[in-house]
Amino acid sequence: MTSPLFKTDIDSMEQRYRANLINSLSGFKPAVLLGTSDGTTHNVAIISSVVHIGANPPLLGMIMRPHTVQRDSLGNIKKSGFYTLNHVSTDWIDKAHQTSARYAPDESEFDAVGLTPFFSETFSAPFVKESEVKIGLKVAQHFTLINDTEMIIGEIQELHISEDYIASDGFVDIEGLKSACISGLDSYHATSRLAQFAYAKPGIALKTK
Amino acid sequence: MTSPLFKTDIDSMEQRYRANLINSLSGFKPAVLLGTSDGTTHNVAIISSVVHIGANPPLLGMIMRPHTVQRDSLGNIKKSGFYTLNHVSTDWIDKAHQTSARYAPDESEFDAVGLTPFFSETFSAPFVKESEVKIGLKVAQHFTLINDTEMIIGEIQELHISEDYIASDGFVDIEGLKSACISGLDSYHATSRLAQFAYAKPGIALKTK
Repeated sequence: MTSPLFKTDIDSMEQRYRANLINSLSGFKPAVLLGTSDGTTHNVAIISSVVHIGANPPLLGMIMRPHTVQRDSLGNIKKSGFYTLNHVSTDWIDKAHQTSARYAPDESEFDAVGLTPFFSETFSAPFVKESEVKIGLKVAQHFTLINDTEMIIGEIQELHISEDYIASDGFVDIEGLKSACISGLDSYHATSRLAQFAYAKPGIALKTK
Repeated sequence: MTSPLFKTDIDSMEQRYRANLINSLSGFKPAVLLGTSDGTTHNVAIISSVVHIGANPPLLGMIMRPHTVQRDSLGNIKKSGFYTLNHVSTDWIDKAHQTSARYAPDESEFDAVGLTPFFSETFSAPFVKESEVKIGLKVAQHFTLINDTEMIIGEIQELHISEDYIASDGFVDIEGLKSACISGLDSYHATSRLAQFAYAKPGIALKTK
């Protein structure tokens, strides 16, 4: 049964119900851990708002909520200018989700949930050792959106991915690397590939790769 | 084998290789069809850059490339102020991907790929009839990012989802509704749920819902 819901229906929903509903509408989201440091305490926080901005220069965006548990991570990024994004594996989604608990500012979520900070010789923010896709970024643009959330765009400085999962055309098999995805606020999913398609052209039947 | 890749390595990659690689890094992305109209021709275009911005007011963002096949859709949005986002089902990913072909401005991708425009009585932009999650939006904010891509944030005006898939807490079972996700530029995936977790608290073992 489908009855349309209108803006007035959404406005009158109970707050938690509305949060669950609206957070489901953007579709499947990447499960990613954000790594930051204030120099003493190394923070790691689950986020699902990462979005591709461009390949040249290589840019990723993310949406952050300054008045939530993300406050410490956001403060670290503003101070240092550097952060990491690390794909969550389907094997340890529980540890990843536990990073969303409200730990004290001087407590490291790495220690609390049982993940391992990893530092490369060339990057100041902590990567997540257990992650199969580790990305080091430098803030390139940072601004506030209409609803007082903040958008941070970072330029990729450094990448750690097993070469065995990078195809000859550059495609990374993140399903083979067991990257997880999220729906709503708290549902975690594995994936199974249906098809990879060739470049589409008008009037020509679509081919798989 | 993992050898780190640095900014200089990425800069020196062949353009298509770099596009495939960098487009894989943001993790799994939602497979969504963007519906727009110029009043005569109804456009529909696959996008994978939708991101949750906030629940109250209900806002979704997306990144658009003004100098690509997305030009017509973007023009329609700028003129009308309204557009729809429609989840792609795993049953017709081929039709969804075919919308990425470069059709002439006066040719409707709906007709070309075999999808059906659906108009509600209360909304001017075309929904995709075959989609199980149909969202009508009004532009709320629109700006240009550092790399000349454009970010459009829309406020949700209208929703069409079967009530059978909305849980009592507002969570929408988009896996049950067969929503697809994308990795890289052209790989489509189905999902299987691993767990849904309760709210995480420090020092307390994580529970599933």
